[in-house]
Amino acid sequence: MPDSANGSPLRVALLGCGVVGTEVARGILTNPIDLEARVGAPLELVGVAVRDLATERDPVVPRDLLTTDAEALVDRADLVVEVMGGIEPARSLILRALRGGAAVVTANKALLAERGPELFEAADAAGVDLSFEAAVAGAIPIVRPIRESLAGDHVRRVLGIVNGTTNYVLDRMTTEGLDLDEAVAQAQALGYAEADPTADVDGFDAAAKAAILASLAFHTRVSIDQVAREGIRGITADDVAWAARTGHVIKLLAVAEVIGPVDDGEVSVRVHPALVPVSHPLATVRDAFNAVFVEAQGAGPLMFYGQGAGGRPTASAVLGDVVSAARRRLTGGQGLRESKDQDFPVLPAEAAITRYQVRIDVEDRPGVLAQVAGVLAEHGVSIDTVRQVSASAAVHEDLAQEHGTAHLLVTTHAAREASLAATVAAVSALEPVREITSVLRVEGS
Amino acid sequence: MPDSANGSPLRVALLGCGVVGTEVARGILTNPIDLEARVGAPLELVGVAVRDLATERDPVVPRDLLTTDAEALVDRADLVVEVMGGIEPARSLILRALRGGAAVVTANKALLAERGPELFEAADAAGVDLSFEAAVAGAIPIVRPIRESLAGDHVRRVLGIVNGTTNYVLDRMTTEGLDLDEAVAQAQALGYAEADPTADVDGFDAAAKAAILASLAFHTRVSIDQVAREGIRGITADDVAWAARTGHVIKLLAVAEVIGPVDDGEVSVRVHPALVPVSHPLATVRDAFNAVFVEAQGAGPLMFYGQGAGGRPTASAVLGDVVSAARRRLTGGQGLRESKDQDFPVLPAEAAITRYQVRIDVEDRPGVLAQVAGVLAEHGVSIDTVRQVSASAAVHEDLAQEHGTAHLLVTTHAAREASLAATVAAVSALEPVREITSVLRVEGS
Repeated sequence: MPDSANGSPLRVALLGCGVVGTEVARGILTNPIDLEARVGAPLELVGVAVRDLATERDPVVPRDLLTTDAEALVDRADLVVEVMGGIEPARSLILRALRGGAAVVTANKALLAERGPELFEAADAAGVDLSFEAAVAGAIPIVRPIRESLAGDHVRRVLGIVNGTTNYVLDRMTTEGLDLDEAVAQAQALGYAEADPTADVDGFDAAAKAAILASLAFHTRVSIDQVAREGIRGITADDVAWAARTGHVIKLLAVAEVIGPVDDGEVSVRVHPALVPVSHPLATVRDAFNAVFVEAQGAGPLMFYGQGAGGRPTASAVLGDVVSAARRRLTGGQGLRESKDQDFPVLPAEAAITRYQVRIDVEDRPGVLAQVAGVLAEHGVSIDTVRQVSASAAVHEDLAQEHGTAHLLVTTHAAREASLAATVAAVSALEPVREITSVLRVEGS
Repeated sequence: MPDSANGSPLRVALLGCGVVGTEVARGILTNPIDLEARVGAPLELVGVAVRDLATERDPVVPRDLLTTDAEALVDRADLVVEVMGGIEPARSLILRALRGGAAVVTANKALLAERGPELFEAADAAGVDLSFEAAVAGAIPIVRPIRESLAGDHVRRVLGIVNGTTNYVLDRMTTEGLDLDEAVAQAQALGYAEADPTADVDGFDAAAKAAILASLAFHTRVSIDQVAREGIRGITADDVAWAARTGHVIKLLAVAEVIGPVDDGEVSVRVHPALVPVSHPLATVRDAFNAVFVEAQGAGPLMFYGQGAGGRPTASAVLGDVVSAARRRLTGGQGLRESKDQDFPVLPAEAAITRYQVRIDVEDRPGVLAQVAGVLAEHGVSIDTVRQVSASAAVHEDLAQEHGTAHLLVTTHAAREASLAATVAAVSALEPVREITSVLRVEGS
């Protein structure tokens, strides 16, 4: 792997030329003077690896830079930018680049969440940088702040809205009263959601980002398999309406937190819809925007907000990494390595501790509330508040219920997931209980 | 200046042992294992320079580390942390450290805003790092994101709430209807404001931060002398009440923006109170919190939110810089240097272009609105909206006015500061105009 002498160009290879790749190419090709000044040497885009040379592309990408031989391209680069996505061949190409001594910038969240340690070890063995700001929350600088700015602090909790599609869907349900299918269809029509929205709606995308954030925040390896995952498919228009009545909005959150001492605890990492109080900064995140809320011991609460997807925003994050990596390539040295010194145990899903709001349809007669409360007490689940809304007391017409049914809205104190599951089963077996209509976690209070 | 071999400790000198210095010492002395793992070598606090050895201090700082000989301390450090504040002797000590080859981490906004170029040149000449995350917005990672994450993007505008004291004061005026003096007294009682609140209330602190943010965002040297500055002393309870009625809150903003092409424009940097629409993310920043809103060409809108002051939050930012600087000290290389490649002209205050809301007390009779509108037209100031509130139409008792007076609320399109000043003078000379009660800029719409 040849190196660049001072002043001679740094050779950049681009793997992938989709929406993000095209914007990365545009940045390198149309801002050469700025980037050169910041790096201290020119950046030369030496090639763009694509699957099919014949595909029609934005004219900003010169045809003579296109190649289908990604391996040969990697071998002649000082810096490799991977924006092709997926596990293979991205993984093999990144390993090849790192082992050959090239710095790598990637936006590949799935690969990092599944195979991160392998990549970090290869980078460390070669003494080169592996940067991935664009892998989480698009344009929002969040990887660098957690990895570097908070390197002298202890992070307690990360709460992130890291999937723009589901935030758009939930926002439309909240503001327009749409049901899930209608809101998903609207997101698809606007290009926010894929034809098959599974990766977003079922929380897979958010889970990959949760794994990456947890690894950074807690200096502990967390893979996507360790992330408890629940998507938004079960969220109904009724859930959203009830959330509003109790002063909440429903958000799909990536949650990573330390249970126990901040320097010797256990890590819980999960993705699920949650009730967020309207007064919490995350509640104000609208449309397809992303935001990550971080609580650190010294810094206190921090929030980072911006666009989580899209070609230009993601390319902005990639190019920031390119400048830093190129600068180090030029001046020597290596950035922060993978930090896994805390190495906390990662808790299984059922050991997570959260607050819950449980909505129960019960017979509207005296004594039912006491019965339900009794079951919670037996299971050691402590009640924060109970709100009983009987049919006659229902203020809103759209909540008018069948005669003789009341709604119980039970909000618990923090309880283990496993205790709650057992409690819900026991409550639903009570004779006057007609239906458990929803069980939602409460976060951010 | 001796260097550290791999594994042997990096020697850290701490200059200043006030609220922030004490927390930095605590971080280094009580988290040694974490920091060592992240840096790759132990950090040894070799001394703490203070003015008076006899002052009572937090017991976390060992007495035998204290010294009044700051120069000798600097000379035996690999890394110097300056948290003493003020121009001298901080400036001389930082220059001494840099010239001797030590990396420097500083939280000194006043020094950077007044003498930044001198310090950056010394750092660059010695090939060492000068880091200053804590100098702007306390715990909020904002220097590193603008300097590094956005290094491949073009920033168009920065709008920051960067002074917690004035945000607290304005927030109390907004939520409790206090007048300025009452709110300042409350801030003083809580320790948010100094006995002499000039630096905060008159915008000097925010102006220093504006200069630093503008320099970073636009790769252009901006000193505090080039920042147009207006504090919040003129803001009345009436201004705050009227702001609410027009869907705004009043915030003290640090504004830095490019006028003209984003890669070949002119820079306007200013600090002033402004009307911010309640729907803007900055409007939700409460109490003494800080937030910085950044608009970049590629990334789009970004916001960074958190605590802008206080010992532990500021120390968190300092320690993040310490880890990065120590890591580079160990592995070689240098971070990003001062970036001044764009070198845009900085506009004088009167050339700034903003929208205004002007509140005018006029005689309540037909034709006055037309007269005022005519004066604006003559001066080339385009009107966005005019709202006329006559005494009889005033809904709120506290707005009940003397008989025969109406309020005109004129919101302009973007206009040059100089044109607006001339316009206001001409309007106030009109016969039916009784008083110009306020002229406030409108930002973030």
